[in-house]
Amino acid sequence: MVDSYEHGGNIYDYGRNLIDFSSNINPLGVPKCVFNLVNQVDLTKYPDIKYRELKEAIAQYVGCVEENIIVGNGAAELIHLFVRALKVKKPLIPSPSFLEYERAARLNDGAPIYFRLEESNDFELNLVELITKLAYADSLILGNPNNPTGQAIAVDEVEKLIKAADALNIPVMIDEAFIEFMEEHEKYESVLLSENYDNLFVVRAATKFFGMPGLRLGYGIGSPELIRKLESYKEPWTVNAFADLVGREIFKEISYIERSRSYINNEINYMLDALKKVEQLVTFSTKVNFILLKSKFTEVALLKEYLLKSDILIRDASNFRYLNSKFFRVAVKRHEENEKLVRALNNFLI
Amino acid sequence: MVDSYEHGGNIYDYGRNLIDFSSNINPLGVPKCVFNLVNQVDLTKYPDIKYRELKEAIAQYVGCVEENIIVGNGAAELIHLFVRALKVKKPLIPSPSFLEYERAARLNDGAPIYFRLEESNDFELNLVELITKLAYADSLILGNPNNPTGQAIAVDEVEKLIKAADALNIPVMIDEAFIEFMEEHEKYESVLLSENYDNLFVVRAATKFFGMPGLRLGYGIGSPELIRKLESYKEPWTVNAFADLVGREIFKEISYIERSRSYINNEINYMLDALKKVEQLVTFSTKVNFILLKSKFTEVALLKEYLLKSDILIRDASNFRYLNSKFFRVAVKRHEENEKLVRALNNFLI
Repeated sequence: MVDSYEHGGNIYDYGRNLIDFSSNINPLGVPKCVFNLVNQVDLTKYPDIKYRELKEAIAQYVGCVEENIIVGNGAAELIHLFVRALKVKKPLIPSPSFLEYERAARLNDGAPIYFRLEESNDFELNLVELITKLAYADSLILGNPNNPTGQAIAVDEVEKLIKAADALNIPVMIDEAFIEFMEEHEKYESVLLSENYDNLFVVRAATKFFGMPGLRLGYGIGSPELIRKLESYKEPWTVNAFADLVGREIFKEISYIERSRSYINNEINYMLDALKKVEQLVTFSTKVNFILLKSKFTEVALLKEYLLKSDILIRDASNFRYLNSKFFRVAVKRHEENEKLVRALNNFLI
Repeated sequence: MVDSYEHGGNIYDYGRNLIDFSSNINPLGVPKCVFNLVNQVDLTKYPDIKYRELKEAIAQYVGCVEENIIVGNGAAELIHLFVRALKVKKPLIPSPSFLEYERAARLNDGAPIYFRLEESNDFELNLVELITKLAYADSLILGNPNNPTGQAIAVDEVEKLIKAADALNIPVMIDEAFIEFMEEHEKYESVLLSENYDNLFVVRAATKFFGMPGLRLGYGIGSPELIRKLESYKEPWTVNAFADLVGREIFKEISYIERSRSYINNEINYMLDALKKVEQLVTFSTKVNFILLKSKFTEVALLKEYLLKSDILIRDASNFRYLNSKFFRVAVKRHEENEKLVRALNNFLI
């Protein structure tokens, strides 16, 4: 059993190099430009406390202006900031979902309301039902695509949600940390809705898709009014000088972006096909770069131990709300690594 | 006039390279080992979420054990974390002092109580009076040495404070962000008191003394119980991979540490002597790497404009509580830069 708020990516518990299927990171590594940039950082100066050039680069990438952007130490800072600045106490959280949403609310002396995503429905979101639950909440937090389920709703459905929340005067945070991994990401992105809705805050991670979670860079998009409110609660200089400089350049790496997306989507299809053939597994459908799985008979704790012998680390998903000790999550890695995982699962489960 | 919570180091407002006397950073640059380390960082992995090796290195440096250490994205994260985790609403803050203390309390829906440090007394702390005020507060936050005044109290006096607070069941945060710059730092350091007092939290900045504020690394020391409490409120992965790796090595750089301390103390003495001769200035005494000054007649806004023509940036100190538009702060820089500042001040003020 894992700790109640424990995350993936914790390879350091094992004291050796593992193939880390537990963290949902671009397997192609960082864009090449990063290596040169890192050597150009002037550490002896504070970063620009207003992060003007960084915001400018992000604004250009997402198609808005600087006043719509806030930057943070990973998406995690912005999730907690949203909860604190908007005094979120009773967020409605479709679950299972990323554990920091509920942790942020609890640390803010709140008590989240959970909306159960049904296993029998492949964890897809029932929009109509969700909207009826909004009246009991003071906010909505939705992962889109959602971690760990890999499900997502298209932007016209997101808009319905935001509109319903707006009518109730309730803020909405859409966490798009994984959206760039999606094949049809444009169909799902809600960034531009912030032009029309003051109650929308979209959170993005820069470092997952660009393969560098160690850098720590996230950003959020909202109306200038909402962004100013969040800035007034923000701690100073949370984005380090490396993240500041690298963040000004990576979004221009169009060919890296397209190559990554295409590679990952090929691999997801390979993985889904291969895993569906493993009889002892339930493989849930996914729109993104990771897959939720359920072992029909074996406890995941045992499966995890077995895979570690082949230096493979999976994400025990038992600590996600509404899941249990049979669930686990794997990210897509490089093809030969994915093959290795499929082989190892087959060996154990057949 | 500067914004109410604005900090120094904001060279980016001016769009060119300035000699930055406004931020209190080691002028000798970073330890040499840093350049190699930066190239060894593996960005494709999350840092160890528990920062075990980093904490081990810090524990060894300050003379305690890993369980006494928490690490943060600069000292700023730990200041805000202390306030949030311990539900600080009415901290007693000897002032003028670092503005993030009061900002943190206000963002936590608190209302600080200010203890006025008297200009007529060179802003020295009146310990007996401060202790009588503790009864009205729910915590104490003390900069030691204090920014912007440069004053400090010795560890036996700190202990009296902590003891008095302990009797009232009140937590104390001592911010030692600048303590390593002090010539007789050992006389002032309160880290080891945390062995005897559960109510003490000591905050340190790693990146000021080691000349790399862009890296973002701070740490805190307290009893294992206090540290666990703070960890339970902490956002994940706030220390980036560069800060994690560099932080594991820099504290071993004894010769850099000693050379820096000696250089800075020579320069402080030179600066104090030279500035005391400027008749239009009041030069307050200091125990650390920066000096608070008061212009007798000229508004600092004018002085600042004048110095910018020589590419010199000073810290307008008018937004510190109990100071006014005649106060400014300068950090010690390299000798030739310090000479330039002294010359420019003389030219303007004579």
